[in-house]
Amino acid sequence: MKFGAYVPPQARERKVPVLYFLSGLTCTEETFFIKGHAQSVAAQLGLMLISPDTSPREPRLPGDADSWEFGYSAGFYVDATMAPWREHYRMYSYVTAELPELIAANLPALPGASGIFGHSMGGHGALTCALRNPQRYRSVSAFSPIAAPMRCPWGRNAFTRYLGAEMDGWRQYDASELVGAIRFPGTILIDQGGADKFLAEQLLPEQFAAAALRSGQPVELRMQPGYDHGYYFIQTFMADHLRHHAARLVGAG
Amino acid sequence: MKFGAYVPPQARERKVPVLYFLSGLTCTEETFFIKGHAQSVAAQLGLMLISPDTSPREPRLPGDADSWEFGYSAGFYVDATMAPWREHYRMYSYVTAELPELIAANLPALPGASGIFGHSMGGHGALTCALRNPQRYRSVSAFSPIAAPMRCPWGRNAFTRYLGAEMDGWRQYDASELVGAIRFPGTILIDQGGADKFLAEQLLPEQFAAAALRSGQPVELRMQPGYDHGYYFIQTFMADHLRHHAARLVGAG
Repeated sequence: MKFGAYVPPQARERKVPVLYFLSGLTCTEETFFIKGHAQSVAAQLGLMLISPDTSPREPRLPGDADSWEFGYSAGFYVDATMAPWREHYRMYSYVTAELPELIAANLPALPGASGIFGHSMGGHGALTCALRNPQRYRSVSAFSPIAAPMRCPWGRNAFTRYLGAEMDGWRQYDASELVGAIRFPGTILIDQGGADKFLAEQLLPEQFAAAALRSGQPVELRMQPGYDHGYYFIQTFMADHLRHHAARLVGAG
Repeated sequence: MKFGAYVPPQARERKVPVLYFLSGLTCTEETFFIKGHAQSVAAQLGLMLISPDTSPREPRLPGDADSWEFGYSAGFYVDATMAPWREHYRMYSYVTAELPELIAANLPALPGASGIFGHSMGGHGALTCALRNPQRYRSVSAFSPIAAPMRCPWGRNAFTRYLGAEMDGWRQYDASELVGAIRFPGTILIDQGGADKFLAEQLLPEQFAAAALRSGQPVELRMQPGYDHGYYFIQTFMADHLRHHAARLVGAG
């Protein structure tokens, strides 16, 4: 597995907080660093940025690239339980355990000061990883997340093939299900473009906001009129997200 | 011809200065906006950003993609005089005349307040366009420019095929030749990576600096140790370049 890393200048002097970014469908470990426009603000705030790839790349599996919505570049941040995916597609364990251990062992990461965010499929990943591991992540946010995957075509298709038809196993990977049962310590920031063509069918942030409201989870869902699903939208609000995380991470640990 | 445009929020209220960015070999009109990480600082400074494509895209000409160093995506910002290129490869006229007229007619551009910069082949283009048109451009800078194209393989190959073997016609497109004869009003800022693999053979900024020293042209050539030829280098110093231009452009016009 490849991952991208940005280490800020403050790391010459001391260990620094780590902010993980999970990318969306079709992306790689470099997409965030090319298109996210995060590095200069991260340098000011003293945040290390880590972005993993969106799926295993080897070995290739039969049918892994039949669709851009499943398989190759579309790991959905779950631990697959169905053959043939279960052998290699274990992105949830990779993101929440293996990768942080690798970072801790090899880069100047401040213990106890990690946050996570992401976009689209990666927004789904960030929300579910954080809600299930509030002891590991002190902050979380998302751009245009797939916020209720059990209720949208992308999520149902991926969960069926990775996890099987039994929906009980899906709930642990559905942010709208999780947020009704788990309280994350701190506000969850979500930015969503109002002109995003995937909004009504695939993303469903209103489901997440409604579930959070019922459970008392603080959520700041910002609908941004006119913005679409792409990285120009993400760039525009990137500094806001980095500051959201820095407020929880800098000085922590 | 396609071009990319970023219009800052200040343009809702008034006309704004225009900063042109010329890209390097293999790039398109979108490369700068994806990889340059310029928009957020341009928004603060109130600069419109315009980046043209690096060559005509249609019609395709015989042999235009035989090499990444010539033809398609490699117009070298000259007006070709040799067949078949001379019919369509007129990038110098496009950048210095046709495109600014198009911008002036269609976007809220402040008259008399334009600057130009670029990278590699586009750094060459920015320097030559500015030196030959100091009345049109109030500011100029470059990242890793091909600073003496008559003395490097990229330049000699392109000029021979676009302009013919007679070298007298080349001088008007060679920044190191021009800067010995023309004085640009204002300091020319150049950033160059010290670990750039093209530095010694293709870029030759020391030739430009030496010619400028002889003619009295103020140049700030910053050698940046450890940086290569890519856009992560450009991103790192992008804000410096935008401020260099804003200091000459904002309030001008």
